[in-house]
Amino acid sequence: MIPEKVDLLRAIEAVSPHVHFTPIHTSSTINQIVQAKVFLKCDNFQKGGSYKIRGATNAILNLSEVERANGVATHSSGNFAQALSIAATKMGIPAYIVMPENAPHVKREAVKSYGGVVILCKSTLKDREETLEKVLQEKGATQVHPSNDRDVILGQATITAELLKQVENLDYVIVPIGGGGVGAGACLACHYFSPSTKVIGAEPANADDAFRSLQIGEIQPSINPDTIADGLRTQLGDQNFPIIKELIDQIIRVEEEVIIEAMRLIWERMKLVVEPSSATSLAAILTKPELFINKRVGLIITGGNVSLDKLPFSN
Amino acid sequence: MIPEKVDLLRAIEAVSPHVHFTPIHTSSTINQIVQAKVFLKCDNFQKGGSYKIRGATNAILNLSEVERANGVATHSSGNFAQALSIAATKMGIPAYIVMPENAPHVKREAVKSYGGVVILCKSTLKDREETLEKVLQEKGATQVHPSNDRDVILGQATITAELLKQVENLDYVIVPIGGGGVGAGACLACHYFSPSTKVIGAEPANADDAFRSLQIGEIQPSINPDTIADGLRTQLGDQNFPIIKELIDQIIRVEEEVIIEAMRLIWERMKLVVEPSSATSLAAILTKPELFINKRVGLIITGGNVSLDKLPFSN
Repeated sequence: MIPEKVDLLRAIEAVSPHVHFTPIHTSSTINQIVQAKVFLKCDNFQKGGSYKIRGATNAILNLSEVERANGVATHSSGNFAQALSIAATKMGIPAYIVMPENAPHVKREAVKSYGGVVILCKSTLKDREETLEKVLQEKGATQVHPSNDRDVILGQATITAELLKQVENLDYVIVPIGGGGVGAGACLACHYFSPSTKVIGAEPANADDAFRSLQIGEIQPSINPDTIADGLRTQLGDQNFPIIKELIDQIIRVEEEVIIEAMRLIWERMKLVVEPSSATSLAAILTKPELFINKRVGLIITGGNVSLDKLPFSN
Repeated sequence: MIPEKVDLLRAIEAVSPHVHFTPIHTSSTINQIVQAKVFLKCDNFQKGGSYKIRGATNAILNLSEVERANGVATHSSGNFAQALSIAATKMGIPAYIVMPENAPHVKREAVKSYGGVVILCKSTLKDREETLEKVLQEKGATQVHPSNDRDVILGQATITAELLKQVENLDYVIVPIGGGGVGAGACLACHYFSPSTKVIGAEPANADDAFRSLQIGEIQPSINPDTIADGLRTQLGDQNFPIIKELIDQIIRVEEEVIIEAMRLIWERMKLVVEPSSATSLAAILTKPELFINKRVGLIITGGNVSLDKLPFSN
């Protein structure tokens, strides 16, 4: 069930030429505040502004020639929509993106500008799934799920694999948990490349379906979660949950005001534009500071796609 | 009058161990928009959040032991206040910072947190100068001017010297012009290390004293300039004007809305928190695009200290 080391090595080899090897940023001020050494793995600087290009690329590279010819499809209004469009366009194949009518105009335009074909539908999950199903049948396209897909998970693992190459002897890697793709990937990367590094998930307390899933032992739904971390509103799937269940150390739930505090610290002190979902990693340290004192902690910065018109900062 | 190559080499050797060697960032999206290859030299990631630490460090390193013992002083409510505090504290000497009473609380606190001694005064230039004079006499401290000081200019030149090492064959370097320190430094660095690279100043049209000074041939005052680029409201001085006058190619004046447009591009597309003054460099390209088509252009990103509560972005 759980991918093997050789699978991960293959994904790294396949994905690396197509993505940016993003930098690590550090801040002595933030280290002082949290009394730990934190290393931010900055995929806000990744193509498309998030790590999602890694999984999208790996999924496409694992298609057969016949499958490729018919293109790929997904339903997403977020980072994965852009990522799949970029990756598909680069490989010269079509990407059909089913988006709800109420998705922000700027997100639609971004997908189009990256070469994706936008197909609008009503905003319910049912409508999105039915519309996607229709596209799959009409176009013969292959569905690529943003997080619950083996090749996507292996692709997302490359961000943590890079981090482990860039920074030695990490005690912890903290990764935001939403759909579970990059979380499962972090678990795999640490398991195979740095087994002494513990993986901690960061999850909004207002969207703690993964926390509850681990407690109960089976996937719990994410129902109308109300969190600023819009990338983390989704739930785990049958491909990533078994990996997370077996390999994660724990999930720390973070409150909304702590997410915003962490986001402000990163913007103000490190001059990095990161999205709220990314800030949950630092928020996890602020939430359980005693766990991290004098530790070396890698933070997965998942992306920087945030609407500048709607920032949560105010006096 | 104009410092020699050996002076600049000495400054680079002296300053480099004390400052971050900041990265270059690029963006294929922005390159497409401006039809040029732009390279951002990111001193928003510098210690204290701006390039000012370079000049402050060089000034302190050129003090005698006796001078050092009595500390340094300046009047500033901006980036130089923080930079001088950081540099002085690191060298174990006091820094007296004269600030107007109406300076933002957060800026006072920042100076204090870096170890500077804040001395408040009324906000007129006369009060600031008189208070500084008093401090100089009472403490025996040495005044360090933020921009009109030979050692400060040589220190600020190191940002452009680094850029020229990091990126070859630049056609242009664009540098924001405020007090003229980093501008004169850019002129020196290109003159000695890459004479074929032209230096262009970027200046807010609403604070175009340097532009007018070049036209007229002598320093023009900056009177109540109204620009969002708060770091560029100051005027040139007798130490930096002769350098700029002799070596700069031209100054491009940029309108307020273009500064904001450039700032938004850098934040949104490059995920970099940069202050309005920094954005004038890209704004200069947006203002005279024909000059830069297919050119290789280095942009001096001077800093990232911006109040997140007062951003100019809105729908």
